[in-house]
Amino acid sequence: MTLSPYPVVKLQSGRHKRVKGGHPWAYSNEIVMDAAAKALPPGGLVRLESGLGEALGVAMFNPHPLIAARLVSRDPAAIINADFLAQRLAAAIALREQLYSGGFYRLIHAEADGLPGLIVDRFGGTVVVQANAAGIDCLLPELLAAIDATLAPRAVVLRNDSGARASEGLDSHVRVAKGNIAGPVELAENGGRFLADIEGGQKTGWFYDQRENRVAVAALAAGARVLDLYAYGGGFAIAAARAGAKEAVAIDRSAAALDLAGQAAALNGVSDACRFARAEAFAELERLASAGERFDIVVADPPAFVKSKKDLAAGARGYRKLARLAAALVTPSGFMFIASCSHNVDVPLFAEQVRRGIADAGREGRILRSSGAAADHPVHPHLPESAYLKAQLLQLG
Amino acid sequence: MTLSPYPVVKLQSGRHKRVKGGHPWAYSNEIVMDAAAKALPPGGLVRLESGLGEALGVAMFNPHPLIAARLVSRDPAAIINADFLAQRLAAAIALREQLYSGGFYRLIHAEADGLPGLIVDRFGGTVVVQANAAGIDCLLPELLAAIDATLAPRAVVLRNDSGARASEGLDSHVRVAKGNIAGPVELAENGGRFLADIEGGQKTGWFYDQRENRVAVAALAAGARVLDLYAYGGGFAIAAARAGAKEAVAIDRSAAALDLAGQAAALNGVSDACRFARAEAFAELERLASAGERFDIVVADPPAFVKSKKDLAAGARGYRKLARLAAALVTPSGFMFIASCSHNVDVPLFAEQVRRGIADAGREGRILRSSGAAADHPVHPHLPESAYLKAQLLQLG
Repeated sequence: MTLSPYPVVKLQSGRHKRVKGGHPWAYSNEIVMDAAAKALPPGGLVRLESGLGEALGVAMFNPHPLIAARLVSRDPAAIINADFLAQRLAAAIALREQLYSGGFYRLIHAEADGLPGLIVDRFGGTVVVQANAAGIDCLLPELLAAIDATLAPRAVVLRNDSGARASEGLDSHVRVAKGNIAGPVELAENGGRFLADIEGGQKTGWFYDQRENRVAVAALAAGARVLDLYAYGGGFAIAAARAGAKEAVAIDRSAAALDLAGQAAALNGVSDACRFARAEAFAELERLASAGERFDIVVADPPAFVKSKKDLAAGARGYRKLARLAAALVTPSGFMFIASCSHNVDVPLFAEQVRRGIADAGREGRILRSSGAAADHPVHPHLPESAYLKAQLLQLG
Repeated sequence: MTLSPYPVVKLQSGRHKRVKGGHPWAYSNEIVMDAAAKALPPGGLVRLESGLGEALGVAMFNPHPLIAARLVSRDPAAIINADFLAQRLAAAIALREQLYSGGFYRLIHAEADGLPGLIVDRFGGTVVVQANAAGIDCLLPELLAAIDATLAPRAVVLRNDSGARASEGLDSHVRVAKGNIAGPVELAENGGRFLADIEGGQKTGWFYDQRENRVAVAALAAGARVLDLYAYGGGFAIAAARAGAKEAVAIDRSAAALDLAGQAAALNGVSDACRFARAEAFAELERLASAGERFDIVVADPPAFVKSKKDLAAGARGYRKLARLAAALVTPSGFMFIASCSHNVDVPLFAEQVRRGIADAGREGRILRSSGAAADHPVHPHLPESAYLKAQLLQLG
């Protein structure tokens, strides 16, 4: 058998079973972390072997973090170059075009797309890349070549400013790697038109993960009065207005985000039905409640309340409070959509906070839909914890 | 305060908190099960009180099973008569018509719709009722009057032949309570036409719970070769054919079910794309594999493998084996949809069996969608275990 030219890193005796069973990671305490392994460059490619010398595949290796090896290919002869990356990209493009044709989607969702630590969001001819692990960061030149070969984009932006990079020993920067970005980028979602600030917006500029949840909310919006908290670029509010909402009120702390949302409302011809207000969500919820305002649908899609495990208790209380304040504004038989993108908050914990918040508000609810991110954010079967987005759509009594 | 005329049943001291917090049940070991309580007729209405005499609401009470009290209303003055039931039905109809207008849906999903133990499926002017608890069984005369008042159906069928009834001390029967049933009933789902055998088919005759999952599968079906295992009335196969599948092969053990599926294919003008074969799924999967057959999409929606907790280990192995055999037939980059309707199998256990089965088949997968039943099967927030349906849609490498 031809083997790859990469240095060998061995797992400790008996520690190969999880990886052989399909898991894409080996942890640092499972590795034979000898002087040679420790001296390997962070993120370099290695041939991963079991303690007995069985080749398990080619991995990205970083001797420093807990996740030491991330498998890229189970073929021990694989050469990870621009051609290899272009094949992975091509497979991902084919899937996305089957799911949501037209070029607007999350193109690469890390391990689940066979490219550990890599996020690529596509906005037509503009591509946004985020490398969240040393391994894929080292491969950025080959990746950019592969993106050119498969997509020939007009512009490529590196949004290498995620929090995850620090734990991998990587710097934080935003850089236009190809072409130029002149203002917001237009995107299409569920037949609507939206605007994303690729360089300065949250994450990669747009939250494609809520695409299918926006469909579910919009399906209930005809004739409704809708409150969209943490509205950002207006994804939920404008979808509701396009579906015939009587009024969609979008709340966000960011004037820049609301400006783009307002422009997007105009692009969709729904400016008359939309209202945009700059406010902090909790304060605005309390103000609306004391003003006696009620909404047929309240959407609450906040940023992560739990960024690390130590914030878990406080974050859980935050979701409960958000559910309580949001539920209090919902008309009888109206709907509440609430989401958490905190990967530390699992489905049962999130469901419990929502349930408690609704009870705190003196309301009863029925869960119509429990969902996660859209299908262009696939989940690796061995990393169920990577399903960071949890959402519930409820009718309240 | 006016109180209901029903006899009082008390919870033991300090055991009222869960019910006060929103849970709809009290267990027999939480009840003051004195001679008076034991003498109450199974399923009769009671006023439920805390140990200190605080009224908690009106409940259906059965001194024999573990679930002794099922709360119907938190208003201790509520009178549970045909008018009350008609109000609950009207609210449920309003929600369903918002979700899926046209009269074809699960109309009442038990506790989540405020009517404990009751299932009502609607097929236009034909209504199927299943009473799974003594309380709602006692109220059937009032319920039938309420159904007449709200829906004025042509026909009402009692499918009181579920396994759940025995544990409530109820008999098993199927009876036409109004009108008559002459052959299969036509229903509409996602724009397609299907046929249900109301009196003799599985459960109530049709599985509306897969409605949204059928949309997700059909969205990938254009040009595909599709295998639909446990096809029953052809829900997935015909949806795929309507979406442009090159070929949809429907497998079921029941000749009667396949006959209805064949008729439904004709109603939709997709008979040429559909093939129906009577076979046992596991045997057919092995036969197809050895014949070298491959499919772009394999759908496996089996009946519950785990009917009681003692079957859990064997049932789990069954799901793993099903996943293995199904995965082996999927083309590279093709899709597998697999479901479990066993309420004893929770989401993580189901996901583990699917993951292992795929690995057993030597395949890798990415989960595109993890879902449950459609929104007309709401979940009570305090009964997350009632979310019996779990499904995964995966792409296989």
